[in-house]
Formats: sequence, C-alpha cells, structure tokens
Amino acid sequence: MTIPDDHPRRKSLLSRQKIVDAQAAGLLADSALIAHGRGEAFDYLIGERTTDSAKRAEREALNRLFRAKSPVISMNGNTTVLAGREAICLAALTGSSVEINIFYRTDDRMRLLLAEIHRMKDYVMKKSPSDEIELERWKDMVKSVKIHGENPDAKIPHLEGPRALCCSQGIFQADVILVPLEDGDRCEALVAMGKEVIVVDLNPLSRTSTTASVTIVDEVIRAMQRMVIMAVEGPLNTDQDWDNRAALVDALDEIGRSTKLLSS
Amino acid sequence: MTIPDDHPRRKSLLSRQKIVDAQAAGLLADSALIAHGRGEAFDYLIGERTTDSAKRAEREALNRLFRAKSPVISMNGNTTVLAGREAICLAALTGSSVEINIFYRTDDRMRLLLAEIHRMKDYVMKKSPSDEIELERWKDMVKSVKIHGENPDAKIPHLEGPRALCCSQGIFQADVILVPLEDGDRCEALVAMGKEVIVVDLNPLSRTSTTASVTIVDEVIRAMQRMVIMAVEGPLNTDQDWDNRAALVDALDEIGRSTKLLSS
Repeated sequence: MTIPDDHPRRKSLLSRQKIVDAQAAGLLADSALIAHGRGEAFDYLIGERTTDSAKRAEREALNRLFRAKSPVISMNGNTTVLAGREAICLAALTGSSVEINIFYRTDDRMRLLLAEIHRMKDYVMKKSPSDEIELERWKDMVKSVKIHGENPDAKIPHLEGPRALCCSQGIFQADVILVPLEDGDRCEALVAMGKEVIVVDLNPLSRTSTTASVTIVDEVIRAMQRMVIMAVEGPLNTDQDWDNRAALVDALDEIGRSTKLLSS
Repeated sequence: MTIPDDHPRRKSLLSRQKIVDAQAAGLLADSALIAHGRGEAFDYLIGERTTDSAKRAEREALNRLFRAKSPVISMNGNTTVLAGREAICLAALTGSSVEINIFYRTDDRMRLLLAEIHRMKDYVMKKSPSDEIELERWKDMVKSVKIHGENPDAKIPHLEGPRALCCSQGIFQADVILVPLEDGDRCEALVAMGKEVIVVDLNPLSRTSTTASVTIVDEVIRAMQRMVIMAVEGPLNTDQDWDNRAALVDALDEIGRSTKLLSS
C-alpha cells in the first residue's frame, strides 16, 4: 500500500500497515490488531498529538527510570513492532534492560520477536542519538543492554498460565518497570509486587491506566520517541509530586474538549 | 475462550471473538480487526448502549427503507459475521434485497461470505420474528430476499479498482441503501449517485458519518436487532424532518458527557 507523503493521517496509516504486516508474519496475536484499532480511535479523539499532560507524564516516567536501581522495559508484540528501536535507545540511555514478554505466549512468536529486537539492537548501534555521545561510546551503551525473555524462569504472583511467566533477571527483580500497552490483570499483579509500573495507554479509563503508578496517555511511538529525546538530556530535577489521577482527568478533559470543539 | 455469563462486557467480548474466528477462517481482511477495535473504543465511550438519538436515527432509517422503491442492504465482511441474520430479517420485513459487497474484494472471501449469508438465510427461515407473522408466510418472505454479490456487473462511478464493483440489480439501481460500516470514499460516491445512504458508524466524526444521509451512531448488532424489532411494527408516521448533523452533534455530546462523568 502506498500512502501519499502529504496524507494528514500518514503516521497513523504507516503504523497500521506495520501492525498488519507483522501479524501476517506471525509476530502478533489476532487480538493485537483489535487492540491497535482501539488505540487508533482514542488517539483520533485526542487529536493524534502529545498533550501537555502526557509530556509531564513522560518526564516523570523518565526520572523514575533514571532513579531506579533495576529498571526494566517490558515489550510485547505491538510495542516491539512499533517502537522496538526507541525501547533499545531508551534502555541504553537509562541503564535499563529489556524483556520481551507477551500475554498470549507461544514459542514461535517469542522466537520471532526476540530475533526482531536483536536486529533492532544492531541497527540502533549504528547511529548515536546525540552529538554529545560519540559513536564508540554509544555502541558500548547499546551493547550493554540486556535482552531478557528467552528463558522465563519466574512467575508473577496472582496470575495463571503462560501470562504469569517472566525472567528472574528481568521483570521479576525490577523495581521500576516501563510496560507500554499492558493488560489490566498484569498491571495490577505487577503493582501488587511492589513495583513502580509505568504504562503507555491511550484509554485513560482502562484498568491499566487507573492502576499504574504513572500513566502516559499517548500513542506509543510518539511517547517513546519523545522519551528518547528527553533521555539524552538526562534526569531533570522537576520536584513534582506525581498525581496520576490528575493526569488521567486531564486526558479525559482533552477528549471531552475535542468532541466539543468538533461539534460546535 | 470462555466468557463468564455475568461479565459486564460479555456482549463486546463475544463479538470480538466472532471477528477473530471469522478472520482465522478467511472471511475478513486483516484491516477488519483493526476496524473492529476502533469501533470497540468508540462504543466504550458511548457506554455500550443505544442512545436516544441513535434510536431516532434507526426509526428514520427504517421509514426510508419502507418508503423506498428499491431498497438494498449492503453487507461487508464484519457486518455479515456480526449481524448477517438481522440483515436477512430486515430485508424480509422491508422488501429489501441484500448485496454482499466488500472493499478489499477477493474471490475467496466473496465465496465464503456468500456461503455464510445463504446459511444464515436458511437459519432465519425457521423462526418468525413475530407472533403476527405465521411461519409459512415468514418462510416465503425470507425466500423472496434476493442475495446479490456473486456476479458484479456494474461500477460505482468515481471509484477505482475492485472497490468500485457492484451488482446492477443490487446497489447500482438502489434508491435507498443501508450500508453499515462503509468506507468514506464509497459513501461519498454512493451519495454522489443520488442515493439515500444510511450508515451505521460509531465514530460521529468520520467522513462516512458526516457524508451519509442518515447516520446511526450505534454498534452494528444493537442497531440491526433494534431495527428488526421496529420493522415488525411496520413504518411509523413520525413526520420528522431529518437533521443528520444534529444527530451527530448529539452523539458527540454523549461521548463528551461520558468522559466528563467518568472524570468527575
């Protein structure tokens, strides 16, 4: 499919095509396409842009990753396909490790996604995200990013079946975890383990959004790209007490405003 | 997958499963799942219920089908899977014919969908929707519903490629067409042919919604089921001048209200 360069919704259509292609290639569960469609609709209502409130959440998330003893970025199928490169950059800049962890786990999909993230790691190594980081140093930073997921040897308590599986050196021992597009049950279970859980979710009313420690109500590519740019600057002393509920109310107000503007 | 009987979102999850199964069986294009997900998100914001404004649109749509000289109900993959039986009932009650017409046309999917709608026709024949219609009469009514789609021999002007194809005895010659879940380009092209176009679309801001003659902002199963129940009563003299823009503003207000209620 060819999408004209000047199409007003070009980014959204390119993302959709990536998801459709990845599903055809066996990287995603069927429900991944439905989840992507739900995200499209919420993003449409939010105006396909990053709100000020989302920017604050992204800064808060980044500060927590920098502050963490053992931060982990947990990537599922959709987020790997859409923003795997950004996840690797972010992990390199914040000293996080990455775990590929999918809800509907099959060996085939895990194998394909791990191969994909390793390819992305090689790609990311080739170009530093900042003039202030020399290429050789950047290569070392990226090389040092550990990729977990291949041999899950731990379980998230209170979950049953394959969705409980995780890696003892990855998610299981993390104090701060960035998990874009997480399921509600799993988000609750991770919070119950005492972790700080940062999610990216375009539905401010979802159980994931209302359960997480920090909810970034933004599209995952935009959120991850912006966090990479912010991470280059390093942590900022923002001194804000984070009120996640207030952030969700802001996001709902944005949706409410956009429906009002468009109907008037 | 088993969904508990008392799950608050049971209907939505059952529909999702139908779509996932139908895609696995080859009845749907990949993008069908994404479209379904978008619908889920809008329905969630609308409260997964039929608003008063949607009920008025459904009554208006029905009156137009009854009043038409040559009404056609155009069904794509998603709507056939979700509400094919209701479409047959509605066609039988309003004297409409049905055309299977899909945007990403392939011979395989057309064959599967036509077989499916014919199976549904046989199923619907077995039970009258009303005590006032005897079974023998009902059977004759259902039998008389023509199913078009197999041999498209006409083109919708201003469209290119397979998406332009339609049947001369179906969509091409219809004066009133009910086409749930239509694409924006096609909706415009059908309106440009001088037809009255009735759509079912959960996004009140979509090009389809803003272009159609009557837009029913409702989930397709709920909309079709309610229209069948209303069709049993026959046409009503409502004497309303239809203002489609006002109906869309109502729907936007509902979404805006639900986000406000939930954030306060």
